[in-house]
Amino acid sequence: MRRSQRAVSILIWGMTPPVLDFWFDFASTYSYPAAMRLRALAGEAGVAVRFRPFLLGPIFKAQGWETSPFNLYPAKGRYMWRDLERACDSLGLAFRRPQPFPQNGLLAARLAIVGLREGWGEEFCVGVFRAQFGEGRPISDPETLAAILADLNVPFAAALAAAQSDDNKARLRAETEEAGRRGIFGAPTFTTPDEELFWGNDRLEQALLWTKRHA
Amino acid sequence: MRRSQRAVSILIWGMTPPVLDFWFDFASTYSYPAAMRLRALAGEAGVAVRFRPFLLGPIFKAQGWETSPFNLYPAKGRYMWRDLERACDSLGLAFRRPQPFPQNGLLAARLAIVGLREGWGEEFCVGVFRAQFGEGRPISDPETLAAILADLNVPFAAALAAAQSDDNKARLRAETEEAGRRGIFGAPTFTTPDEELFWGNDRLEQALLWTKRHA
Repeated sequence: MRRSQRAVSILIWGMTPPVLDFWFDFASTYSYPAAMRLRALAGEAGVAVRFRPFLLGPIFKAQGWETSPFNLYPAKGRYMWRDLERACDSLGLAFRRPQPFPQNGLLAARLAIVGLREGWGEEFCVGVFRAQFGEGRPISDPETLAAILADLNVPFAAALAAAQSDDNKARLRAETEEAGRRGIFGAPTFTTPDEELFWGNDRLEQALLWTKRHA
Repeated sequence: MRRSQRAVSILIWGMTPPVLDFWFDFASTYSYPAAMRLRALAGEAGVAVRFRPFLLGPIFKAQGWETSPFNLYPAKGRYMWRDLERACDSLGLAFRRPQPFPQNGLLAARLAIVGLREGWGEEFCVGVFRAQFGEGRPISDPETLAAILADLNVPFAAALAAAQSDDNKARLRAETEEAGRRGIFGAPTFTTPDEELFWGNDRLEQALLWTKRHA
């Protein structure tokens, strides 16, 4: 399990590695390549990563947007799809444009919150991103999420019940509020222990370097 | 002169280098580091660069924005200023936040159009960016622009008359329309001979590599 691996690493190093927070929304396009390459790069940098799913919807609404800015501003949207395709090409990542866009990632986010406490969260998050942007599967469909959990040997019914509990819903809301308080306005965003923000998949290397240098 | 240097390079290589177009608005914050590092990086890559000033105002207006999105969306604006400061730090570039923001870059853009035909345009553009973002000088003030031209030994009165001619005004309008037709929605944007768009200072290296590989 990932948690015990991390605990062992800490024992070997004799110190706690600095932690970079990875804030993402499952519907966020550039969060896909970030999620797929994050852990390997962080490992090389000696930085620990904390996955922090939140919801962009309330943050966009506070800016007056009822949907993704990539839909509201078509030129920006056209650019993003092409740019994302190029990014995935250069990383050797499969890419399929999800239909419709943006996908509703609410249930996936609630499940991720559960999984991140139970030890299967990171693999689940990566699985959701791969299903959505690599395979074009609908992540609002519980069947898609059940299949991802089955691959991880996580019983779906129990995970679903935990995800839909009032406590868990409140946890996701609190994370979204925390994101807003930190000045997060898009995803992915990386936040460092000294509260620097780095926005965008293309800022990941810089965020890791900052975390390491300012530890 | 830069033009004759380029002509000599072409003779030595025996072929025309591929050309990357650098689309910018003088008020655009990330266009500052891009303008300051563009020519050296392009030289190393064996790529020629064409400076193409245009106006973001009409493009933003078509998206429903009456001012910079960094003013309309305060969280995004706060992030941008900090991110730009970090970028300038790491490049060893002086940085001062211009007041007010955005600056009116209309006259500077018209002068740049003249200069790019007369051979002093690139140095003028770099000078305007340095004055605005490195020294905090007002680029809407003709005195600021006159001082930059004086450093380049360009007579201000003649340049100003050429800049304000109807023909020249029409040229800047045509460039702005061309930017819109190409799907440009922000600055800096780099466009390649095969019409790929790369948006943002942080895409410069990728744009140069693409231009070189697909020449």
